[in-house]
Parts: sequence; C-alpha cells; structure tokens
Amino acid sequence: MTSQPVVTPAGSQPVDQGFSVELGHERPLRLDCGVELDRFTMAYQTYGALNADKSNAILICHALTGDQYVASAHPTTGKAGWWERIVGPGKPLDTDRYFLICVNVLGGCMGSSGPKEINPETGKPWGLTFPVITIADMVRAQARVLDYLSIEQLFAVIGGSMGGMQVLQWAHAYPERVFAAVPIAAAARHSAQNIAFHEVGRQAITADPNWQGGNYLEVGTVPRAGLAVARMAAHITYLSEPALRRKFGRKLQDRNRVTYGFDADFQVESYLRHQGITFVERFDANSYLYITRAMDYFDLAAEHDDTLSLAFEKTPVRFCVISFTSDWLFPTWESRDIVRALNAEAANVSFVEIESDKGHDAFLLEEPEFDRTLTGFLNGAARRRGLPA
Amino acid sequence: MTSQPVVTPAGSQPVDQGFSVELGHERPLRLDCGVELDRFTMAYQTYGALNADKSNAILICHALTGDQYVASAHPTTGKAGWWERIVGPGKPLDTDRYFLICVNVLGGCMGSSGPKEINPETGKPWGLTFPVITIADMVRAQARVLDYLSIEQLFAVIGGSMGGMQVLQWAHAYPERVFAAVPIAAAARHSAQNIAFHEVGRQAITADPNWQGGNYLEVGTVPRAGLAVARMAAHITYLSEPALRRKFGRKLQDRNRVTYGFDADFQVESYLRHQGITFVERFDANSYLYITRAMDYFDLAAEHDDTLSLAFEKTPVRFCVISFTSDWLFPTWESRDIVRALNAEAANVSFVEIESDKGHDAFLLEEPEFDRTLTGFLNGAARRRGLPA
Repeated sequence: MTSQPVVTPAGSQPVDQGFSVELGHERPLRLDCGVELDRFTMAYQTYGALNADKSNAILICHALTGDQYVASAHPTTGKAGWWERIVGPGKPLDTDRYFLICVNVLGGCMGSSGPKEINPETGKPWGLTFPVITIADMVRAQARVLDYLSIEQLFAVIGGSMGGMQVLQWAHAYPERVFAAVPIAAAARHSAQNIAFHEVGRQAITADPNWQGGNYLEVGTVPRAGLAVARMAAHITYLSEPALRRKFGRKLQDRNRVTYGFDADFQVESYLRHQGITFVERFDANSYLYITRAMDYFDLAAEHDDTLSLAFEKTPVRFCVISFTSDWLFPTWESRDIVRALNAEAANVSFVEIESDKGHDAFLLEEPEFDRTLTGFLNGAARRRGLPA
Repeated sequence: MTSQPVVTPAGSQPVDQGFSVELGHERPLRLDCGVELDRFTMAYQTYGALNADKSNAILICHALTGDQYVASAHPTTGKAGWWERIVGPGKPLDTDRYFLICVNVLGGCMGSSGPKEINPETGKPWGLTFPVITIADMVRAQARVLDYLSIEQLFAVIGGSMGGMQVLQWAHAYPERVFAAVPIAAAARHSAQNIAFHEVGRQAITADPNWQGGNYLEVGTVPRAGLAVARMAAHITYLSEPALRRKFGRKLQDRNRVTYGFDADFQVESYLRHQGITFVERFDANSYLYITRAMDYFDLAAEHDDTLSLAFEKTPVRFCVISFTSDWLFPTWESRDIVRALNAEAANVSFVEIESDKGHDAFLLEEPEFDRTLTGFLNGAARRRGLPA
C-alpha cells in the first residue's frame, strides 16, 4: 500500500513515502538527562486520511527494532511493513476510517535524530555524544510532531513491547491527549531479566573491535558481528520454547545427519544466523545501545513512590491491555500489574490475555483473537468518540 | 576438604589433588564422529575411600562449565568445590560412606584431552583439530577410567544439567554397570531453544578477532570478550525471572540515580559483567564450543526411532529423576518425558519435582528438599545394594 498523507505541513520533507520534520527551534526539547535539543528531526509515516475535526488519528508506537514503516515497504530491505497484517483498508487498524501515524523514535536509525544522524552543531555523526534518551523523551518528541500536525487529541495510541511502554507513558504524561490506549505485550517497568538480556546485547556490540568505541561511522567500519550476536540473543527471547519446538525442533538443515562440526547443522541455528545477518543490514549498532537503554530505564512507578496507580491518577483514558500466554519477555503478570493499578484508579480498562504459543512476537503474527480484540475495542471507543462507522 | 584417594593406580599422575591417566594405547577410543583416539588423558578427582568389594563408588558427572573439583578448591580460582554443599562427611553424598569420582569430561579444559591440550602427534594445541565429541563419547571415556580403576559397577551415577545427560547415557549404554542413576535438571534430548542459546554463545566466541580461527593458543591471544558474552547470555538461562527479581530487581549499583549512560547502572548488569569476566579466567573458549556442541547433539531417542523408552529397554537401573519448578532451561516436562519412557519399560523410577524459584542452577544451591530427596533415594538404594549404613 502507498502512503497518502492528507496533512502535508509546510516545511516538511518527504522521506520515502513519509515525512521528516525538524523541530526544537522555537521550543527546545528538554530530555530527562538534562540536555536540551534545539534542533531535532523526527521522521514519520502516515496512512489514511485525517478527518475534518482531527478526531480519528491513531498513533502507532513501534518496538525496539521497529520503525515507522508500519504498512509500507521498508526502504532498505524492501520487505512489507511490520504491521501490514493489521493496518490497511478493512483491517483492524482501518485506513479507511482512521488516520494512522507512526514516528521513528528519538534515538532510532530511520531518519529521526539519533546516534546515526549528523549532529548539526559539529557536522559529524552524533555517535555516543548523542544524549541518552528515555521512553518519556521518545513520547515528548512524538507529542511535538502531533503539535506540528495540529492534532490535539489522539483517538488512540497503540503499540506492542517497547511500543506498549510508550503507550503507557502517553497515557501518563498526556492523559488529555489520549482518548484510548492499547498497550500490548508490555510492562510498566523493565524487569531485571530483561535488563540482563539487553546488557548481553550491548556487551556483544561494544566487544566488537569494529564498534571503534562508538565511532564506527566516522572510521568507516560496521560492528556487524557484535550487532548480529546481540540480535540473535534477543531474537530467542521474542519467541517461545513451544514455538521453536513446533517450528524447528531438532530438524537438520539440508543434511541427513549431523556433521560433527560447528556449521549450522540444525535448522534453528541456520534461522538464528540469518536473523543476525539480516538485522545488521537495517539497523544501527549505537541506536541499539540507546534504545535498549531507554527500555531499561523505563519504570513508571518509580517517580510515584513505587505505586503504579499514582501514575494514572484519575485518568480519563480508556485502556485495553493485551498480553499473550507464552510471552516470557513481557509475561502476563506484568500486564496484570498495569490492570491492577488502573483498577485502583477506577479507570476504564479491559484486559485480554490471548492464548498463543508464539511468544512475545505474537503481536506481530497471525493471531485472530488478537485482531478481534483490537477491532472490538476500537469500534466501541470510536462509537463513544462519535466517529462514523 | 582434601582429596584422599584410596586407589592409587600405578602410572597415574597427580594433578592438584587428583589424578590424571593416559589411556587408549591398547584399546583406542572410537568416537561417534569416527575418529579413534589412541592416546587420550583423563583427569579426575576422588573423595572418600573405595570399599573392599568396590561396591560404593559414585560417579559425579559435571555440567557444561563444571569440572572435577566437586569438593576441593579450584586450582585456578581457589574457590570452594562446586558441589561442596552436598559432598563431604555426613552430607548427602557422604564421603564417609561412598567413594566419589568426578572426571573432567573429554573435550574439557581441566586436564582431560580437549582442544586446549597438546595433541601428542603434533606437539601443538589441538584447537579445532580436536575431534567433535558427543555425550556418548564423554561417557565412553569415563568408562575407560573406571576400567582402569577396576570398578565394574558404579553404585550410582549422579549429575545435573549436562551431568544429567551423561547419567542417562550411562544408564543407556552401560546398564549393567550402573546400580542407581540420578539425572537432575536434565533432558533426554537438547531442545531447539537450548541449541539456539548455545549457538549465540558460539557466535559470540567465534566473532571475537582474538579467537583467531580457533588458533588463539598458538597465536597467544585470548578471546576474552567473546567468551564473556557467551557466558553472560548463558548465565541468564541458569537463573529464573523470579530469582533475578528477588535478588536484584531494579536496584542500582552504588549510585542513587541512573547516570544516563552505558555504565552498569543496575546491579544485575554489574553482576552479569562480573560473571563474564571471572568465567574467562577459568575456562577455555574452544572447550566451550566443543561441550555445547556435544549437548546440542544429545538425543537419546533419535537412535531408537524417536522412542525414548527403547533406549532403556528392560533396564535394571534404579532411577531418581529430579527437576525444579522454575527451571526453564531444562523444564520439568523434559524430566517427565524421561519418567514416562522409563515407566513404559516398567523401570524402577521415582520422580521428584522440587519447588524452587532458583531456576536451573537450583541443583547447585541451597534447596533442603533436594538434599532430602537425594539422601533418601541413596539410602534406600544403598540398603538394597547391601552397603553398610
């Protein structure tokens, strides 16, 4: 599908089929770390058309290694958008009905300001001089894009995994700008185990001599091996043991017997190596460091005396919290914690745990019950919001 | 405690407080890969005294990164033996009653033949020219050590994790030589997810330029960074999410607030880095490749038409299968598969799933119910075997 943005704000620059806008001049973006960005770029894609009263906008928040190419071909890999399955005419995120926006996160590597981009002050890539960002910073930057598009209130904010963290942060920081929120396979704080997995990935990247202390862009190297190892380790956590068993088991790769060597004898090894190799083509190693760090730092309860409900005090937002039974990266109990906190605030919240053996990645895969849940919740919210059917 | 071996076979060479014996001269060891070793060394430790009719010997099989220093100080790190908690006078593996043997596995790096040792043919380290070995090969080599010690039948074979795989292989390959078998936190076949984690570790090692295509010993480098990353990733799988939450949660390391940087802000990061760094001091990177590969290849059912029970046909061995509730690396259902197969052969088997939040490593840690289970089973078996109390 092609991107047909209806709003084409003056001064915006097309990137592929999307937009890129430079912000911060008049109002610098103050980050959690204290740094102020007075020139930052946000790249985004839109799908569908914004209605006259700007009440049908849905912000899709992408995950750690996701991007704004939700439903259009990825400019590097040429592959279909990562949520094309549910974004499009007649689909749960119906482009005939809603105006969908997805912004590459601050710190990302698909056009928004991040370590891969040029620091306008120095004319050189930011690299590790880019300030360390948080989920709250990502959301602040997205809010600036919405300001720019003159969208006061989002009909909905939706996202899975780190996208779900952003959804929670949106509801927390801008409750009046969010009509409905759908955090999927997410958590209100990053767990010790997840921090540990992220640290393994970061160590793999920084151990690669081609990382060059973070200056690889200037030196002209690419820390491929380290980034691939980081991806491989992370990828296992996105799946589930039953899914791996069903899909690969102990099946051999193009051979009848093991070779008594270190080649990829098993299909699962071959698959994993492929995941590592292809990821390196489309992702920036430093960006991986920054975004994992932002997730590590996420803890919505921390600023509220460890009481999560206080982060949603008297929230007017309608929530639909979704988890998956076999997700061990963001297990259901973490969604339940969110629901309990919302209940403590008498918030409008529904909670659905979807039976699936596909692990964390289930939100990206074929799961009819997930689609039905999303469609049902959005239909109800749309009626309440007065959007035409 | 000190090692006081009672059998001191002629020709054996003491290594630290243990022994080392060269075997294969008269009867080469034929490996699964087809290679024959006519000179191979096995290093082992013994504890307690062998009785007159040699009926009180227990073989302890160590795990992936374990070694023969079960209950004596590690020669490199100086740390206490890895199972000192349950091996000793009056302990579950009672050195006043049993004669305990632990052999460094073939392919290991604590004195037994493996990639780190010198190939007697060339006078150079084996490196990647060492033949790829299997769990069955490890067990064959251990059997040769027992031949050498003139121990016909073991009272028991006991081991956790990869040690448990060896226990199963012992019962399968030498049923007449095993009176009782205790596979702990193990599986009869390595799962797809576990192969995947191993592959990540191997990729991390081989991605380290200091690995030098496997020739680092000759070149004089050490692939520290790669091996540390491999260990870090693996270490997460030895624990459990609840244990990590209980032990570390999101606690910060010697600071009051996050630093907005990539230092180890969180205790769990600091802990994990420490695990990586200390592991490198005591383990050989190539050995890690070989031993993980042996585990990947382990599939007791495969040679029997995928019917595990056939691997234990009419077995005379008494089994005690033990698993831990929070072990997600070798989850309980894999122990149940073993028990079901043994039941199908009407074998003498008891099965205990121990309630623990400590994950896979629970078998190495304080778990009173585990100790009681082990003691109870061994006492019963000892009575049956006619060993004095």
